[in-house]
Amino acid sequence: MKMVDVGGKERTERVARASAKVRMLPASLERIYQGQVEKGDVLAAAKLAGVMAVKRTPDLIPLCHPISVSAATVEISPCDEGLALTAEVKTVDRTGVEMEALCAVMAAALTVYDMLKSVDRGMSIERVQLEHKAGGRTGTWSRT
Amino acid sequence: MKMVDVGGKERTERVARASAKVRMLPASLERIYQGQVEKGDVLAAAKLAGVMAVKRTPDLIPLCHPISVSAATVEISPCDEGLALTAEVKTVDRTGVEMEALCAVMAAALTVYDMLKSVDRGMSIERVQLEHKAGGRTGTWSRT
Amino acid sequence: MKMVDVGGKERTERVARASAKVRMLPASLERIYQGQVEKGDVLAAAKLAGVMAVKRTPDLIPLCHPISVSAATVEISPCDEGLALTAEVKTVDRTGVEMEALCAVMAAALTVYDMLKSVDRGMSIERVQLEHKAGGRTGTWSRT
Amino acid sequence: MKMVDVGGKERTERVARASAKVRMLPASLERIYQGQVEKGDVLAAAKLAGVMAVKRTPDLIPLCHPISVSAATVEISPCDEGLALTAEVKTVDRTGVEMEALCAVMAAALTVYDMLKSVDRGMSIERVQLEHKAGGRTGTWSRT
Amino acid sequence: MKMVDVGGKERTERVARASAKVRMLPASLERIYQGQVEKGDVLAAAKLAGVMAVKRTPDLIPLCHPISVSAATVEISPCDEGLALTAEVKTVDRTGVEMEALCAVMAAALTVYDMLKSVDRGMSIERVQLEHKAGGRTGTWSRT
Amino acid sequence: MKMVDVGGKERTERVARASAKVRMLPASLERIYQGQVEKGDVLAAAKLAGVMAVKRTPDLIPLCHPISVSAATVEISPCDEGLALTAEVKTVDRTGVEMEALCAVMAAALTVYDMLKSVDRGMSIERVQLEHKAGGRTGTWSRT
Repeated sequence: MKMVDVGGKERTERVARASAKVRMLPASLERIYQGQVEKGDVLAAAKLAGVMAVKRTPDLIPLCHPISVSAATVEISPCDEGLALTAEVKTVDRTGVEMEALCAVMAAALTVYDMLKSVDRGMSIERVQLEHKAGGRTGTWSRT
Repeated sequence: MKMVDVGGKERTERVARASAKVRMLPASLERIYQGQVEKGDVLAAAKLAGVMAVKRTPDLIPLCHPISVSAATVEISPCDEGLALTAEVKTVDRTGVEMEALCAVMAAALTVYDMLKSVDRGMSIERVQLEHKAGGRTGTWSRT
Repeated sequence: MKMVDVGGKERTERVARASAKVRMLPASLERIYQGQVEKGDVLAAAKLAGVMAVKRTPDLIPLCHPISVSAATVEISPCDEGLALTAEVKTVDRTGVEMEALCAVMAAALTVYDMLKSVDRGMSIERVQLEHKAGGRTGTWSRT
Repeated sequence: MKMVDVGGKERTERVARASAKVRMLPASLERIYQGQVEKGDVLAAAKLAGVMAVKRTPDLIPLCHPISVSAATVEISPCDEGLALTAEVKTVDRTGVEMEALCAVMAAALTVYDMLKSVDRGMSIERVQLEHKAGGRTGTWSRT
Repeated sequence: MKMVDVGGKERTERVARASAKVRMLPASLERIYQGQVEKGDVLAAAKLAGVMAVKRTPDLIPLCHPISVSAATVEISPCDEGLALTAEVKTVDRTGVEMEALCAVMAAALTVYDMLKSVDRGMSIERVQLEHKAGGRTGTWSRT
Repeated sequence: MKMVDVGGKERTERVARASAKVRMLPASLERIYQGQVEKGDVLAAAKLAGVMAVKRTPDLIPLCHPISVSAATVEISPCDEGLALTAEVKTVDRTGVEMEALCAVMAAALTVYDMLKSVDRGMSIERVQLEHKAGGRTGTWSRT
């Protein structure tokens, strides 16, 4: 078990973008957009939970490096299945922010689940995946 | 935004079981089971990350109640797509442990991703979902 | 330095309510309610930060007991000086939730500051104080 | 909701100084300085809580950047109303430490409250505010 | 990897006491008691760090249960080798507080090291061990 | 109480190595290596707990600087008394990683204790100490 050595890498600009879907009943989606959820504003809470999870990534993922995050955004929009979530994270550091972007969409998706679970326990989170990364020794990667 | 009042509920035994899949290249699965991953033992790290995430749930999910967890296990086995993860969490408290079980599979799945991402960046996490819950006012629910 | 012994106390219903004011320029208040703040929705972020701070109280206040919070809400409304914040926290435990309620208004007020500081660095946080508590050996207390 | 992009800013020396007052009964102040507080040494605990809160700032303030703090001190002295607290925080990073200094005085002030609340529940925390900042694109600012 | 099931155990009073020694140069011990340490009051900082570590135990020790701590104290006194540390922790819960007491002495001892390391890097921490526990199914145990 | 100013120091490569022993009954050591511990794989859990504790160091040790860790490993091997643990941590930052290495061995040792305490409550942790550090203004130090 080791946190691999990144001390020899350059501090360079790096970006990562991840996405996830939350599949839910149409009635649940309607509740969200009509502000009828008892716990409060689902989209605001989920976005904020996503941004905060970026900063908890090294605590959650055992072998992840602590990183100096320079930007983080979470976007949520309706889609066929329910909600589509995207997170983009940037850093100027020695290793990438893929895990930070993935943690952000996961925490945002789970926050949606938490706020609606009393009315739609069957929701599922799908296709949690990296979409794009750039910067660093391995360069650019995009999902095709 | 509120953490809803559960003070009037009974402290009773509650259990929740959640699952997730990590879809990966067959070669990645092989690496895991042959112990050829640079960062270390993937299954041990993922299970432990899952159990630890149970305890971080109230920090990650903004409107979740802090809860007195009495048991937590994470199981991982190979499946058609890669790995199948299950978490079971128990409590004797005023609210359920669905979010704890979901956070556990989420952190375990992301730990798998983290440890293999340098060789298989395209992995995705699928069907993060509740399988079963029992106890509390709303009783038993099982995915059908 | 000690966390005093509460083991002999009863687990009973307890509630605490705290408040604070954020004094700001009228133009800053207008920005908040017109949604013109670059970082996002100030009131939603501040309320959520307040609820989450309830759960971080034992980490922030060295001699505070970890407590089983059963409810938490943060309310924010405009007032003469800028914003008036209130937090109410409940528990069924061996000690009160005064510190949790105070941490909630503190974190909510600081989140307001953070989101507006680039345009109004002179804001100040005033009258962070307990308004009311009930339950426990010392009974009810209200600010007069 | 976003953590704004600071990746294009320079890593430069930055400093921030914040202050707060804790208004209390004269008898409470006397207890502190005569070491008659059951939980222990109030000033030592409050200063330490303040320094530690500097490091928890990104966890408490949702849209704050994690930052590489290079120095932090908390000072406390008696004043007309009770106690006057000051915190000074330094960094060599891409964004300022105003929030870190404000979190420090807030946590220190709340620790004072916690340690004395059984004898003086009416204490209030006043004028939590930035006093001075220097460094970075926006340069020097001082309260007048 | 599992957090074993304690849901069937009774909530009863439990106590644990742990100890540790910090072996140091006589000159270092003198510095501590004469208040000549640049970072500040070593004994106050170490005791407070110990009490706070009690609350971080479930985050540090992967398979530990989160527990409702009802009391915690840390004592430090000079001894032949340097400093002798003791921590006592109590709970009324389903499992014991041995790990909490051990984490407390560990964090207190490491805080001593941190504050003196610039003048005495060779210090060592010895005999970190449980001294006594009582309560629970396995009853009383004392080191002989 | 202060976090001393390291802002004037250079960001340079620094390394620290710490060690500890866990003294246990021969039967306990056997259980570990034969995989007969109810909670799971002791060595994997202890190593992971050690690496994760590196990242919690600034939360545990009050006056420690948050640091950009670039590598961390924990090794465990059998020895006369039971287990010998070593941690090595690297950074490219303004201050050293001695505390991170010491926290790693402590958390790893306590995890061993936690997983075996039901069968060997008398275990003790011995000689928690720095073995080597290099880099920074004070240069290289090795235990002799």
